[in-house]
Amino acid sequence: MKVINDLLGYKNLNIVQDTQMFSFSLDSVLLPNFITLNKKVEKILDIGCGNGPIPLILSTKTNAKIIGVEIQPEVAALANESVKLNNLNNQIQIINDDINNLVKNLETEMFDVITCNPPFFKALETSNFNQSDYKTIARHEVNLTIEQVIKISRKLLKNKGILGIVHRPERLMEILFLLNENNLIPKKIKFVYPRFNSEANMVLIEAKKNGNPGLKVLEPLFVHQDNGDYTDYVKKYFENR
Amino acid sequence: MKVINDLLGYKNLNIVQDTQMFSFSLDSVLLPNFITLNKKVEKILDIGCGNGPIPLILSTKTNAKIIGVEIQPEVAALANESVKLNNLNNQIQIINDDINNLVKNLETEMFDVITCNPPFFKALETSNFNQSDYKTIARHEVNLTIEQVIKISRKLLKNKGILGIVHRPERLMEILFLLNENNLIPKKIKFVYPRFNSEANMVLIEAKKNGNPGLKVLEPLFVHQDNGDYTDYVKKYFENR
Repeated sequence: MKVINDLLGYKNLNIVQDTQMFSFSLDSVLLPNFITLNKKVEKILDIGCGNGPIPLILSTKTNAKIIGVEIQPEVAALANESVKLNNLNNQIQIINDDINNLVKNLETEMFDVITCNPPFFKALETSNFNQSDYKTIARHEVNLTIEQVIKISRKLLKNKGILGIVHRPERLMEILFLLNENNLIPKKIKFVYPRFNSEANMVLIEAKKNGNPGLKVLEPLFVHQDNGDYTDYVKKYFENR
Repeated sequence: MKVINDLLGYKNLNIVQDTQMFSFSLDSVLLPNFITLNKKVEKILDIGCGNGPIPLILSTKTNAKIIGVEIQPEVAALANESVKLNNLNNQIQIINDDINNLVKNLETEMFDVITCNPPFFKALETSNFNQSDYKTIARHEVNLTIEQVIKISRKLLKNKGILGIVHRPERLMEILFLLNENNLIPKKIKFVYPRFNSEANMVLIEAKKNGNPGLKVLEPLFVHQDNGDYTDYVKKYFENR
């Protein structure tokens, strides 16, 4: 069922969702709020933009042009509807393509910032996925691996440009190694914990192309209080859920 | 001035300190409480044991034999006094030597667990240290670098043996790379934050020799509450300070 929701916490933004495809999740709200944006940023790319939450939220924080790329036509169509609904056609462009294909037609070193909330889970050869399933493609590395995201980012980012990724801590080592191998130097990390006494289940990473080493581990973010309620930080975005 | 203190939080343990050399700090209390110890652990090595806080605390948690190595004779002497004072001569042996030298005389693959609270700061060539200063040697990589700690641990740990390190987040990338290069696979990480809204200023890392990949980021540890008091976790160890 297609519905129009507030992009929670952003009262002036609406987002078109389809409950049978997928709706945006907390990761997509945290990433655009984590990434460093300065006034010089002119072009931003969001790889695998889904129905567009990251470009939409970024539009409240910067005047830069934002391109969102989404492989699934029906999902890209939702993103496009949201862009129109919010009158953001001048700032946000949604491209329905596989980034692995699109990258061949893009100028190198053209973006100041790249964001990506990629598929989290490895697509093991033994897995028996329904490859046409919307959620499978968004969640499993069927069409896009983290290595591809990082190699593409290396190519498309300007010198000193920034890549922001949200992922699972289990994959952290692999991601840090891939970033470093591709001269994308990790600068900021923030861990997200479901509760005060839980292991982290999400990590936000910012890397700078050809940056100097020097990692900061930012204050942690907790999703739930001990009583099960959302914490104040998360409530801002999700309280009406 | 030489003084005998409770090893705070461990009412049955005393530790001999010398206020002019150095006294143990929070890192040395957190590391032995972080490291995984099972009943099969027979031999533990603490590299750069200082006046002995890590071996002393470990003795409350395991029956394994513990060797502490300390390069500075006066500091090793303090550790030895504490071992005697607590009647732990049968469990803890303090060796006054440079681990880089001692390692040549030790059997390879003899330890189940190695702990190290190493010097945190790089000894830059331009630095003008007083190399005889007790604190300089304990804090700067004059005699012992993190790379040496990791290479020595690779040699001395049994297969599937565990290395536990406490260090600064700024050095995290370098440490993770060195661990991985030496087949010491990071398994557990815990960040320590001075306050709820601060960047992490300490990190505890546990790596397993020839372990399988799969990192867990444990719940964070906060040192101070918003009002400046120690948090309950830290109070247990440091409330009388």
